[in-house]
Amino acid sequence: MASSDTQGKRVAVIGGGLVGALNACFLAKRNFQVDVYEAREDIRVAKSARGRSINLALSYRGRQALKAIGLEDQIVSKGVPMKARMIHSLSGKKSAIPYGNKSQYILSISRENLNKDLLTAVESYANAKVHFGHKLSKCIPEEGVLTVLGPDKVPRDVTCDLVVGCDGAYSTVRAHLMKKPRFDYTQQYIPHGYMELTIPPKNGEYAMEPNCLHIWPRNAYMMIALPNMDKSFTCTLFMPFEEFERLPTRSDVLDFFQKNFPDAIPLMGEQALMRDFFLLPAQPMISVKCSPFHLKSHCVLMGDAAHAIVPFFGQGMNAGFEDCLVFDELMDKFNNNLSMCLPEFSRFRIPDDHAISDLSMYNYIEMRAHVNSRWFLFQKLLDKFLHAIMPSTFIPLYTMVAFTRIRYHEAVLRWHWQKKVINRGLFVLGSLIAIGGTYLLVHHLSLRPLEFLRRPAWMGTTGYWTRSTDISLQVPWSY
Amino acid sequence: MASSDTQGKRVAVIGGGLVGALNACFLAKRNFQVDVYEAREDIRVAKSARGRSINLALSYRGRQALKAIGLEDQIVSKGVPMKARMIHSLSGKKSAIPYGNKSQYILSISRENLNKDLLTAVESYANAKVHFGHKLSKCIPEEGVLTVLGPDKVPRDVTCDLVVGCDGAYSTVRAHLMKKPRFDYTQQYIPHGYMELTIPPKNGEYAMEPNCLHIWPRNAYMMIALPNMDKSFTCTLFMPFEEFERLPTRSDVLDFFQKNFPDAIPLMGEQALMRDFFLLPAQPMISVKCSPFHLKSHCVLMGDAAHAIVPFFGQGMNAGFEDCLVFDELMDKFNNNLSMCLPEFSRFRIPDDHAISDLSMYNYIEMRAHVNSRWFLFQKLLDKFLHAIMPSTFIPLYTMVAFTRIRYHEAVLRWHWQKKVINRGLFVLGSLIAIGGTYLLVHHLSLRPLEFLRRPAWMGTTGYWTRSTDISLQVPWSY
Repeated sequence: MASSDTQGKRVAVIGGGLVGALNACFLAKRNFQVDVYEAREDIRVAKSARGRSINLALSYRGRQALKAIGLEDQIVSKGVPMKARMIHSLSGKKSAIPYGNKSQYILSISRENLNKDLLTAVESYANAKVHFGHKLSKCIPEEGVLTVLGPDKVPRDVTCDLVVGCDGAYSTVRAHLMKKPRFDYTQQYIPHGYMELTIPPKNGEYAMEPNCLHIWPRNAYMMIALPNMDKSFTCTLFMPFEEFERLPTRSDVLDFFQKNFPDAIPLMGEQALMRDFFLLPAQPMISVKCSPFHLKSHCVLMGDAAHAIVPFFGQGMNAGFEDCLVFDELMDKFNNNLSMCLPEFSRFRIPDDHAISDLSMYNYIEMRAHVNSRWFLFQKLLDKFLHAIMPSTFIPLYTMVAFTRIRYHEAVLRWHWQKKVINRGLFVLGSLIAIGGTYLLVHHLSLRPLEFLRRPAWMGTTGYWTRSTDISLQVPWSY
Repeated sequence: MASSDTQGKRVAVIGGGLVGALNACFLAKRNFQVDVYEAREDIRVAKSARGRSINLALSYRGRQALKAIGLEDQIVSKGVPMKARMIHSLSGKKSAIPYGNKSQYILSISRENLNKDLLTAVESYANAKVHFGHKLSKCIPEEGVLTVLGPDKVPRDVTCDLVVGCDGAYSTVRAHLMKKPRFDYTQQYIPHGYMELTIPPKNGEYAMEPNCLHIWPRNAYMMIALPNMDKSFTCTLFMPFEEFERLPTRSDVLDFFQKNFPDAIPLMGEQALMRDFFLLPAQPMISVKCSPFHLKSHCVLMGDAAHAIVPFFGQGMNAGFEDCLVFDELMDKFNNNLSMCLPEFSRFRIPDDHAISDLSMYNYIEMRAHVNSRWFLFQKLLDKFLHAIMPSTFIPLYTMVAFTRIRYHEAVLRWHWQKKVINRGLFVLGSLIAIGGTYLLVHHLSLRPLEFLRRPAWMGTTGYWTRSTDISLQVPWSY
């Protein structure tokens, strides 16, 4: 890497959240002069605000990005491994479905702690600075000119060589790109909202199996629970907004939980459930797609700013972290040449981020509807079996997404191909079973399922078929 | 209509373009106090600016809206009727395909004159005022609070009961709605750009058939020409941006026209073609969809602000005008109750505006690719024939869209149903022709196409089939 051509060049990273802070580390490591502008106060000193999801699932892609800036071990040590989905049926029965093989797991990570660690990592670079309480008020992305409002509310103009928009699903940088010609954009809210609830520790220990992501699939509704380091679980209830609106009173909520999640009530505690349920209204979930991710050689979007996705594949943070890693790899490839690297980032990365967006939306239906069905369990077993006998040819979708860096869009293509092959295989298998079953029926019970194919009597009595029943049964499939 | 409950209520219409001005007439007629804020100067006094398309196709929906405010006759008298598409083939051959029956036509209308007439119509209401040179700088749509910048650049706050966003494809009002929770939005640029060119009058007369919309379909490219009242034609060339970029010099342009539109060069004049071609760069085309169109009882979007569509069905203005008419009909139905009327407008109108958006995108491909094919001509003839024999059952799509007020989304449903019926009919017809043809072959040429079905010789010679060729041909289809 030629670092000389980055030294002295200024990069403004908008947003000091997870992706912004990680990106600042990557860029600082590359010797850019990095300024991070974060609208909120420093979360390491300020009182924590409720609202955003509390914990996140870190998987391979995110870990690889953290590894590249030397933070993997530190972050992983503060996560709780989750080796399986634990499905809670309505009757209270629990069944575990492993995510992968015995050594594969995802990690439940505290968003707040991760963000704090990343901010501290940014500040460990002498050439990086985080400006808290600085809000982007205006931006001329094609010229690298920003206007930021600091705590003194005085607008200050900043000029830089590169603006990196990591300012989340409601990105201000993206709003400025949207006004440029030929910028495609979609935002879509799903009918579901989410609400966070808590399962506290029980006698100082986890109240449920700790190394699992717990799922209560109920078709229209779904609840999940992720373990925290303090031995509590954070539950997230997903439900259509109109259903939330049908639960205005405490007794409505209790009835609803008794009907749908009876085993969760004693775990949460009735009082605490009521307190959490009415603390905040249900939050919306947005899916955002755009194209391109860049403007000339001056501005690029990453993370939720480029592709906010619904949370049903647990890949939001991982996709955002992989954005940073992919950009870093392209900067290596193009020797820090921004005018080549930015268009290539759009060209290369958009199909992948759109693919994980589509997969997450697909799982939005899949996870609620099928996780409790026998068919789903059968498919997972079949996936596992096929992967075991053909480890490099057949890789389950979840494994490709969570435990490899196979490009998301390639994972989708392989998945479609695998589904086709499986369906054909099942068809052949089903046919063979039918044939075999029929044979057995015929052989053991002396039935004649193909009687109707025999030559009609009026054709004469000299034919082969009418000679003897015994002979016809000896060669029943030879025609 | 109870006008008393609108009197004194204030409506701010943002945008004094076609839809904004028409809407202001509707609302003023309903006794609201109407203020129109238009960012540009008064086009009736200012020098006209080039850029937006010069002429538009007015059809039934737009005319019905104009009729409701008493302007239909005035506007129609300033339009040039177009009764048919005139297809220009590469060889210079021209073929006319009528739009409907002999009394049906669309009108080529000057955007500028129409806008001027509508603004004058607004000002004829004592309770309506147009504020030119007033730009919307901020808006709190849920409270009906606006900040406008007048020519003095001093921000002025305005409070009103209803904000109507008619500020076009790049709507500022919509940008504010987008920040509200659960507002779905899509903007998509198509790969084509457009450029306007001119065919001047020839010896004081139209240089081509005046009562046609001329089309030069060339697959990847397309040119159209609409007649003006001054006996000129305005041509619009549609072409991918990358193709425009391949024509940097005058000789490139001339070569391109000689290759693709040879008959247009003498009509335009080589000098004028060059002047027009290099006057302005090609302009982008955007398709915008959003949902909902309203916010509570305080804000509603209409026209391009709600649904910018690509121009390939000639329905942009008509759909926008019908928005105003539909809203007016709902205001009648709900007795001017905005809190009922606005949600109902979203519920009722969005499927229709999304349908015409999809149809226009469909025509983007259809018009370029198929207008010159025999199959397209055959389909149009078939449509005409079926419509003639079953006028109320079978209505061609174009007729439903351009010459009726059948809801756009219902037109699409009917069209799909009709296509299915036609395809089945064609299949049956094709089968009958094949059968009849075979019969004739057999009967007149003594061929035996069904020879292979005859009883094989080894089955014996006593069968019916081998008795005599003559008899078998007498009852060839009886089995």
